[in-house]
This record gives sequence, C-alpha cells and structure tokens, in this order.
Amino acid sequence: MELLKKRILQDGTCFPGGILKVDSFINHQMDPILMKSIAVEFVRKFASTNVNKIMTIEASGIAPAIMTGYLLGLPVVFGKKKSPKTMKNALCTKVHSFTKDRDYDVVISSDYLTPQDNVLFVDDFLAYGNAAMGVIDLIKQGGANLVGMGFIIEKEFQHGRQRLEAEGVRVESLAIIEDLSDCRIKIKD
Amino acid sequence: MELLKKRILQDGTCFPGGILKVDSFINHQMDPILMKSIAVEFVRKFASTNVNKIMTIEASGIAPAIMTGYLLGLPVVFGKKKSPKTMKNALCTKVHSFTKDRDYDVVISSDYLTPQDNVLFVDDFLAYGNAAMGVIDLIKQGGANLVGMGFIIEKEFQHGRQRLEAEGVRVESLAIIEDLSDCRIKIKD
Repeated sequence: MELLKKRILQDGTCFPGGILKVDSFINHQMDPILMKSIAVEFVRKFASTNVNKIMTIEASGIAPAIMTGYLLGLPVVFGKKKSPKTMKNALCTKVHSFTKDRDYDVVISSDYLTPQDNVLFVDDFLAYGNAAMGVIDLIKQGGANLVGMGFIIEKEFQHGRQRLEAEGVRVESLAIIEDLSDCRIKIKD
Repeated sequence: MELLKKRILQDGTCFPGGILKVDSFINHQMDPILMKSIAVEFVRKFASTNVNKIMTIEASGIAPAIMTGYLLGLPVVFGKKKSPKTMKNALCTKVHSFTKDRDYDVVISSDYLTPQDNVLFVDDFLAYGNAAMGVIDLIKQGGANLVGMGFIIEKEFQHGRQRLEAEGVRVESLAIIEDLSDCRIKIKD
C-alpha cells in the first residue's frame, strides 16, 4: 500500500531496539482518512473469504477494525486488556508484551465469539506475534473460525508471521518493515 | 436520535446500581453502521463550531471518534489510560472511576493537544462526568480550546452534565437515560 509506505517514511520515527513510532497518524493521534484507505485494503485482501465478524484488541486496533467493519457491514468486537473477573462468560488468554516486559490478560465475552463466527482479526502491528497468538487461542476457546489476520504494519525482523503461518493462519500486512537498525526505516517494496 | 433510543431499549440491559449494559452494540461488540449514524449526529450538533480536532479516551470512545473524524476529515487523538512515565512530553490527569472504585491516569502527548487545537471531545458515556472533567484539565494543560463534548449515552441521574456546564462546556448527548431503577430503562423523549 503505497500511500501508507510513503506516510511511514514521512512521519514515522525509529528508536533503538527496533521501535517504530507512528503515533502522529496511527496509534495515538490517528488520520481517519488514511484509516479508511487501510480498511479498503483489508476488504480487498480478504474479499474471497466468508468473514462475518471483525475482531481486534483495544486500543489501537479499534480504528482500523471499525472502518473495516463499516465497509463490510459487519459487527466488530474488541478484546479487552483487563482482569477476566469483571466480565461474565469471559474467554481469557495471557499475552506477553516484549515492549513492556510483562504479561497481560486479554478477555472477550463468549457471547461475541461463537461457532457461528468467521473472524477476520485486524490490528495495527505484527511484531513477535504474541498478541495474535493469544487471539488464536481465544478463537479456539470460542469455537469460532479464523479466516485471516490483517496488520497495518509488520516488523518482519521480529518473525511474528512465521508463528501465525505455522498455525495455518493467512496473514496480510499493508506495510512490511524489513529493518530498523541504525534508526533507518527500510520498507519492503 | 430515534434509531439509537430504539436500539438501547431493544438490546440494552440494566443491572442494580444504575448500570446500563450496551456491550452487544456499543462498547465491546460494536455496530459500525450505528456508529456511523452516531457520528453523523455529532457532526450536525457541532456543525456551527470551528472544530479542527476530535479527542476521545481509550477504548470505547475510539469508534465514535474515528467515525466523526472521518466524516469531518479531521485528526482524532485518544487519551491513554496508563502511566505517564511511558510517554515523553505527556500531559496527565487523574480520573476516579466509580464503577471500578479506583483512580487511573489519563495521558496524552503534548504534541497532539496544543493552542492551535479546537477540540470536540466524543465518548460513549456521560455518567458522573469524572473522565470528562479530566479531559477539561488536559485541554487546559495543552492550552487548547474545547468547542464541546458529545456523548452517545448520558445517564442524567448521575448529574455529570451539571459539572461540565458549570465549566462553560457545551454538552450534547444522543440518548438521555432518565432512570434505571427497578432495572427498567427510561429514556427521555
């Protein structure tokens, strides 16, 4: 997605340790026009599937997910990062955050993840794939079917894709970052 | 907003203690078509203002905010519920949650809340107004201008509106709940 790649090169900044900051247009301040274009790409990539529900995790996945759901006319559900105690009928999985170096719970009501759901998962970043592996676990717990996972930005050098593909999951990313060493952003053509 | 009121009566459930659960279509699973209609109402209500930025708080404010930003072609920024330590140049305010009976920090980068910003704040619920009062504090800290606050659902009996109006803030809610006692939902005409 050329528009996105250009924007990352223009407005993204990178920091030691493989950190790419896109918080002026994707995950703190957001450009809704770009978000809609991102959603159009997800719709095109997964057009051949029988998706009937969009899923994401709070908070920065919600914007691309709601736009994708809007274009497809499908419900959108987001996993919450919180204690499962506060939710009835909760499905729960534990995710390790490398960035924050801690574990957190992702919970979703079993009312909204059922054997009737053919789920497209949408999120802002694919890095090591820990959150996405948690989502696969939640989808299994709910007895739902995962049709694919779409990411705005994939950090290829953190190898999340391999873990997801090993689970048989179709992965589509709109911009693939090959390298961030020396604080230079190198995007795959 | 008739469509919203009907939906609340149809799919909302209420629990002792003034709790209204709308998590099948607003704040856990979301109906993006309804969200877009909600955004249209916010656009109409605040059409006469000089708004140039939409603000919300994660997580359930993001969907109506991104839709409103999309319709107006304006950037959307969301306050994060986390430690200000993890963000450079952070503006921070403390908010008390009655539901969870604890304080939490809401932080926003000062890069995205500046004297150039005429902010429309959008959120899912107005209850006691604690989160909204925190937003007013953040907007003051950033030197920004608040043009108004729009809520999907206002719980009138928790009197948040009075606190906001006492600060000179224009408040618009799309559905006003008068009463939830005896677990019956009474919506203002």
